[in-house]
Amino acid sequence: MGYIKLDYNFAMNKHIPNGLSEEDIDEYKEQAKKGMSDFISLCESGEVGFPHLPDYDFSEIKETIKSSKGQYNDLIIVGIGGSSLGVEAIVNALLPYGYNALSFGERGCLPRIWFADNVDPHKLYWTLKKCEAEDTIVCVITKSGSTVETIANFSIIYKWLNENLKNPYEHIFAITDPEKGPLREFAEMHNIKTFSIPSNVGGRFSVLSSVGIVPSALLGLDIDRLLKGAKDAVDSEKEKILHLSAIYLAYMNKGYNINVLMPYTSRLKSFSEWFAQLWGESLGKKYNFSGNTVHAGTTPVCALGTLDQHSQLQLYKEGPDDKIITFIELGTHDFDVEILADFHSEFSYLTGHSLGNLMNLELHATELSLKNEQKPSLKLVMDGVDEYAMGKLFMLMQYVVSVIGLSIGVNPFDQPGVEEGKHFAYGMLDRKGYDAKKREFEDNYLKSDEYII
Amino acid sequence: MGYIKLDYNFAMNKHIPNGLSEEDIDEYKEQAKKGMSDFISLCESGEVGFPHLPDYDFSEIKETIKSSKGQYNDLIIVGIGGSSLGVEAIVNALLPYGYNALSFGERGCLPRIWFADNVDPHKLYWTLKKCEAEDTIVCVITKSGSTVETIANFSIIYKWLNENLKNPYEHIFAITDPEKGPLREFAEMHNIKTFSIPSNVGGRFSVLSSVGIVPSALLGLDIDRLLKGAKDAVDSEKEKILHLSAIYLAYMNKGYNINVLMPYTSRLKSFSEWFAQLWGESLGKKYNFSGNTVHAGTTPVCALGTLDQHSQLQLYKEGPDDKIITFIELGTHDFDVEILADFHSEFSYLTGHSLGNLMNLELHATELSLKNEQKPSLKLVMDGVDEYAMGKLFMLMQYVVSVIGLSIGVNPFDQPGVEEGKHFAYGMLDRKGYDAKKREFEDNYLKSDEYII
Repeated sequence: MGYIKLDYNFAMNKHIPNGLSEEDIDEYKEQAKKGMSDFISLCESGEVGFPHLPDYDFSEIKETIKSSKGQYNDLIIVGIGGSSLGVEAIVNALLPYGYNALSFGERGCLPRIWFADNVDPHKLYWTLKKCEAEDTIVCVITKSGSTVETIANFSIIYKWLNENLKNPYEHIFAITDPEKGPLREFAEMHNIKTFSIPSNVGGRFSVLSSVGIVPSALLGLDIDRLLKGAKDAVDSEKEKILHLSAIYLAYMNKGYNINVLMPYTSRLKSFSEWFAQLWGESLGKKYNFSGNTVHAGTTPVCALGTLDQHSQLQLYKEGPDDKIITFIELGTHDFDVEILADFHSEFSYLTGHSLGNLMNLELHATELSLKNEQKPSLKLVMDGVDEYAMGKLFMLMQYVVSVIGLSIGVNPFDQPGVEEGKHFAYGMLDRKGYDAKKREFEDNYLKSDEYII
Repeated sequence: MGYIKLDYNFAMNKHIPNGLSEEDIDEYKEQAKKGMSDFISLCESGEVGFPHLPDYDFSEIKETIKSSKGQYNDLIIVGIGGSSLGVEAIVNALLPYGYNALSFGERGCLPRIWFADNVDPHKLYWTLKKCEAEDTIVCVITKSGSTVETIANFSIIYKWLNENLKNPYEHIFAITDPEKGPLREFAEMHNIKTFSIPSNVGGRFSVLSSVGIVPSALLGLDIDRLLKGAKDAVDSEKEKILHLSAIYLAYMNKGYNINVLMPYTSRLKSFSEWFAQLWGESLGKKYNFSGNTVHAGTTPVCALGTLDQHSQLQLYKEGPDDKIITFIELGTHDFDVEILADFHSEFSYLTGHSLGNLMNLELHATELSLKNEQKPSLKLVMDGVDEYAMGKLFMLMQYVVSVIGLSIGVNPFDQPGVEEGKHFAYGMLDRKGYDAKKREFEDNYLKSDEYII
């Protein structure tokens, strides 16, 4: 149980003429091995910490949350990017569709979950409108302790807690840097329960830290199984990681600048968005090579089977040769049900098949149809979606992206390109120390309506 | 009120060195004009029908639905692709965040809404688990009347209605071809209330037909305003359509193969997915040109501000020059609220700004930050999100994509590339007449585990 298989037949030239040869695989696997070796060094030196997360002692989280069982009707996650996408991926995969519309009893006395993951007044208004402060627990998640969007949302939620509660601090969990930052200072001042994100674990690699673990535990999910899946990926999937990295490297090198992830289950839709951050932010980098600036990275695209057969497949099949598509197939679908299409004679061919069977069969049809147009694809096959499988999948992909980044010579763990925009925003917000950025903004942002119609 | 402005400054070489010249705009506008002229001919001849939708008489829909007010606690949309994405875009834009968790009273005695938009057993199980058949209305939407995913889902829902109700047919609305198809035959046999999709309106251009109008009316939205916005786009936005088409054409021609849509409001997240179908399926086409096969189309990517500043911006700024980014800015944000970040001295700079102001200011910072790296962007500015604005935006984008398709010589209204996959699926399902496809599948799909690890 809990396997993840990699099927890369339709990426190979045995099946598609312009595909990879076995020599290509060997060559890029050598490159990936170098990346893996650099990666292991970074982990051993303590610079990169996420592979060690499954070994952390999460018993304090478990204890804290066990004692809060049944206490909360609502959980609000205040975070953005790496502080929200992983939690959303877990929630989408492991909770029922429409979970928030279930009653407290139907949810096993567990809270509903809301995301304050954007500075969107409409979204925040309707979140607070639905919650009662006394029944709500707020998880505010920011590693630096000062992410502007998170702080802005939190300030409004904090005011709301304050207005409605004698002790608002009991309704807050802070998830932040282990030692420093304004959120930690605020939390310590008010005795707010605080959980740490290890300093060597970056935002987009933090889903298996307290960032994902605290919300998962609050939602009654089996965090031991989540961590066990991740641990098993570290221990047993190195060969698969190298293979998958090699295939992606080879297609990047062939000039395919788009990387589509297309699970055939609605439960992994948010996982694709988590992966898009991991891939895009880790590999989209510029660097100098022999005096030239190189712009690295390919663009992640989130697709969903079978839905996108009715949206993107036309483009994937007949459009340019610029995409490598990774499908995800489930061996079994929970709650599978038989189709009984006897209401019209034309549909008798459907009867006897199950819905999950139809899902997988359409995936196979899509694979072959793309192959016939010489469009490459590969496939991850998982037996199903549960905590263990998600832990494994998260960790596998985190390894793959780290290995690829290091083997093409970029730092997959930084994000220097987002700083300038932040500084412009600080400037416009009149933050101290950003006057120069403010002036630069004022001098360079538009003042004419020349090209506005 | 209800304006949409196009700001294309940062797509121009006055602001980014590798941007467009005014001559480029003139040149591509000429090309767009030819596309527009072909498009108008197709509309006048009746081959293409969507621009006429705002003139249709929807009074029957209004009457039917008015009389059902308060009757339903749940609405299930059974549809896929063009039969679900438009409705999702409307719902996401115009209903509260977390709408389904509001009580019947809080919803104004209007139904919750669920989507059976994928053949996903988990999703369907939890949908039916939450609904009571006697309080549920099912909208089954398929133009052909035989879309396999829709029929499969519907067959299971129909069985559930049948098992729980004396007259299941009163709980079904069928939205399909005006004359033919198995769904229409079934509906007529059982006196099921049926609404038509005009035969000259294709799936991805059907949001303003009964496909979007019936669910909108059931959800209490102002369909007259939705249609008025669309009508005004047809009547008054031709110049903007030509300009926007010209810019996209120019960047396609420069080799930018990725088209990012990045609204700065969570309310338009699903609109981006609707647009992705419109763009991808309309323009992703192969055709013959002087004996050579051309693979047309660029790949739509859905991004969301501010969230994707913490996910995709790093790639957009430092990665390859292969994207044109279209932002959407709102002049005003509903329920805007002031930030009072007085809980830590470091955040005093935020106090006094509103959440919506922060959203827009971050957009401006992002625009300038991308411009400084010579990455082109353009921006649609809308005063807000309501029925009128959505109608206008839908219609504007449908025109732009039609004009671009016709001006590059592809048929934006067909989708020949999805047929082969369908036929393989029919073959595997043992549908009569698809034996050859079944054999082709069996002979060509994999039988070895050569490249599976």
